Amino acid sequence: MIAALDEGWADPARLYREGRRARLLLDAAREAAAEAVGCRPDELVFTPSGTHAVHSAVSGAMAGRRRTGRQVVVSAVEHSSVLHAAQAYEQVTVGVDRSGLVAADDVRAALRPDTALVCLQSANHEVGTVQPVAEVAAVCRAAGVPLLVDAAQSLGWGPVEGDWSLLTASAHKWGGPPGVGLLAVRKGTRFAPQGPADERESGRAPGFENLPAIVAAAASLRAVREEAEREAARLSVLVDRIRARVPRLVPDVEVVGHGTLRLPHLVTFSCLYVDGEALLTGLDRAGFSVSSGSSCTSSTLTPSHVLKAMGVLSEGNVRVSLPPGTVAEDVEGFLDVLPGVVAEVRSALGAPAGGAIPDPGTAADSGAPGEAATEAGSDPATALVVDSLGTLCPIPVIDLARVIGDVPVGGLVTVLSDDEAARLDIPAWCAMREQEYVGERPAERGTAYTVRRRV
Amino acid sequence: MIAALDEGWADPARLYREGRRARLLLDAAREAAAEAVGCRPDELVFTPSGTHAVHSAVSGAMAGRRRTGRQVVVSAVEHSSVLHAAQAYEQVTVGVDRSGLVAADDVRAALRPDTALVCLQSANHEVGTVQPVAEVAAVCRAAGVPLLVDAAQSLGWGPVEGDWSLLTASAHKWGGPPGVGLLAVRKGTRFAPQGPADERESGRAPGFENLPAIVAAAASLRAVREEAEREAARLSVLVDRIRARVPRLVPDVEVVGHGTLRLPHLVTFSCLYVDGEALLTGLDRAGFSVSSGSSCTSSTLTPSHVLKAMGVLSEGNVRVSLPPGTVAEDVEGFLDVLPGVVAEVRSALGAPAGGAIPDPGTAADSGAPGEAATEAGSDPATALVVDSLGTLCPIPVIDLARVIGDVPVGGLVTVLSDDEAARLDIPAWCAMREQEYVGERPAERGTAYTVRRRV
Repeated sequence: MIAALDEGWADPARLYREGRRARLLLDAAREAAAEAVGCRPDELVFTPSGTHAVHSAVSGAMAGRRRTGRQVVVSAVEHSSVLHAAQAYEQVTVGVDRSGLVAADDVRAALRPDTALVCLQSANHEVGTVQPVAEVAAVCRAAGVPLLVDAAQSLGWGPVEGDWSLLTASAHKWGGPPGVGLLAVRKGTRFAPQGPADERESGRAPGFENLPAIVAAAASLRAVREEAEREAARLSVLVDRIRARVPRLVPDVEVVGHGTLRLPHLVTFSCLYVDGEALLTGLDRAGFSVSSGSSCTSSTLTPSHVLKAMGVLSEGNVRVSLPPGTVAEDVEGFLDVLPGVVAEVRSALGAPAGGAIPDPGTAADSGAPGEAATEAGSDPATALVVDSLGTLCPIPVIDLARVIGDVPVGGLVTVLSDDEAARLDIPAWCAMREQEYVGERPAERGTAYTVRRRV
Repeated sequence: MIAALDEGWADPARLYREGRRARLLLDAAREAAAEAVGCRPDELVFTPSGTHAVHSAVSGAMAGRRRTGRQVVVSAVEHSSVLHAAQAYEQVTVGVDRSGLVAADDVRAALRPDTALVCLQSANHEVGTVQPVAEVAAVCRAAGVPLLVDAAQSLGWGPVEGDWSLLTASAHKWGGPPGVGLLAVRKGTRFAPQGPADERESGRAPGFENLPAIVAAAASLRAVREEAEREAARLSVLVDRIRARVPRLVPDVEVVGHGTLRLPHLVTFSCLYVDGEALLTGLDRAGFSVSSGSSCTSSTLTPSHVLKAMGVLSEGNVRVSLPPGTVAEDVEGFLDVLPGVVAEVRSALGAPAGGAIPDPGTAADSGAPGEAATEAGSDPATALVVDSLGTLCPIPVIDLARVIGDVPVGGLVTVLSDDEAARLDIPAWCAMREQEYVGERPAERGTAYTVRRRV
């Protein structure tokens, strides 16, 4: 990058020597990136970010297929840039299983005569699940519908397999500089760039090229690819270690994402009765920088749409991304501090300590929440209502866990909550604790979630 | 920039320490840039380029004023990013005088009840003319219409005066890195960002922030501003030297742009009978990197829209931009080589050597072009037709200059040309050589341009 700042500052559209040199650098970067993507150099342009690449890909592909229709098929776990771009059209969402995996048959079933585009990520950005892109590409090709692959998560690990039509990626995701995205549009794909005309990058990416960053992006892609196979094998072992050991070290944890169809470096798990922001802060204090899809860590106070689509627990969510060069000692250090940090957060929240459900007789003595009340018109011995209104994740689930022992097996507990995360986390808690989730209904305030005690 | 690559690589939206540090850097950069612009930090966002800033400014301002109407007033000499963005609406163009200057009265006259936006550059990018922004801003404010100022050319020299509503700029234009633009939207300006939703930069600039470049952009803006006054005074003297000496050193040259209302570092002139690309190549060989608005240096083979709007000569056009630190010796070196390079290009094209018109009697002997013919039905002694069809700038003008002496004073010469540059350059030649431009009419092929010999 530093070399490119010296050599590649000029405008590649200019005729003087610095401009011609810039043009040569740009051409070389395009060739290198195209080779890594597996396309022709004239099929690839550089954009200012992966998000810009996605926005341009969706709008250009949809405009190119205007006569076909306005339907766009997306998976429920696409990156928000894809979902937001698709919102301008008739968006049809294909769901995923509990591991985050899309089924090619579900994509096939979603196709209609007016389907103009299908969007599928190569791998998920939050849970690492690798999607069946080649299979979906074959389905799309057979139906004559272009497939856009958001390859942001996986391009550093290897090219995207299959007969895709459009592909996007982001350099900072493979360890390159920020400010560079890729957009590849295979020959024969109808594509009409939208927005004001601009002569740069074949009219597909307006604005003065960020040449130093483009050169660095292409060089870094080549560099990470050279190490990719070895590094993937190494990191994958470390991820397996985290996947196996976290549930043994920390009670009430759900590791999410696919066990084998996954990125080599990413692992995500959720901890019951834990405030995600407090957990992140605790881990940060211990020197570990992790992300979270918990509602309390998002500006909208809703859980990640990916965890929601998977139907997994979102509270106490932790996403660990191992950067290249991570060694076993780093992972051991993380596993050493994690149980203590989780316990600390749980204790501060007054969360249930263990997994055992107390006996109804003793539970009343040992401090069921004051908000607990018998449901009007039902047997006070077998139905309880917990008012968790005004509290946020993970409090409603903690309230539920604290009173479930107050009803006999077969009895009902209803949690009143206006926290969006409860909709995801109460059923997820039931699945984890082998209780029966009965359902939800609108309440006078918020929503009433009902659970039947099974164990 | 290098420090920011080390310190500012993380996602400023994240809660861990690297993310928080990135957020602090981003906030500090925003404050510094806002101070230089003369706006509040929360009025300013960073975009991936000046072009993106302009596109977002126009689409956001037009959508914000949707109920007012779809008319947008632009000057004829705006940057192509402004003109292209305005093309999606009802674009009304305000002309300029021969120096490239917009008149505030012309803007006022163009305003209608459905005018949603006015766009005016702070200074022109090709000829350096500084526009009366404060005066136009007052006109717009009185009419209740927002003014968007494209300040790309001038922001390094100082803040934009006047009560503008929106402002855009580009870091690489002030010597900062590529990959960063600015968009300022003053409070109270109706603005509705277009395109897919994105949480970055107040929803006005989608995509992962290019933080290292943003930090470097803010730092470089502060640095160039510290030197701006001194450097402007110094470079302005050098530009004055070029403006004064080029017409004395090189025959048949027109210096274009305003003599005093101009940027300190930019000077543009056009040379009759010269192929712009050959001139650029010759100067490049001599070590000088200049740009050109000549048709032969553009991919569309049309002259720059700025020179066209000004009605000045476009052939042999040279734009000299003095970078900070340029010294008198650099300028002297340029003035030393320029006459020789121009003469060489002219000689290779067989252009007239001097300004004198040969006598009709001798001109015939001294080689009038073979294509010259008498116009059907007119006096062969007083009317000539030159067929320049299929030739490109500067050949049609050279053909005209070679035969004008073949008709007596008062006689007519008609040039047939299908080169777009002829429409601009034949009248410009007449103005420079004190001949009378009669007019143009469609011919069987191309256009017939008629000139009356006056001297």
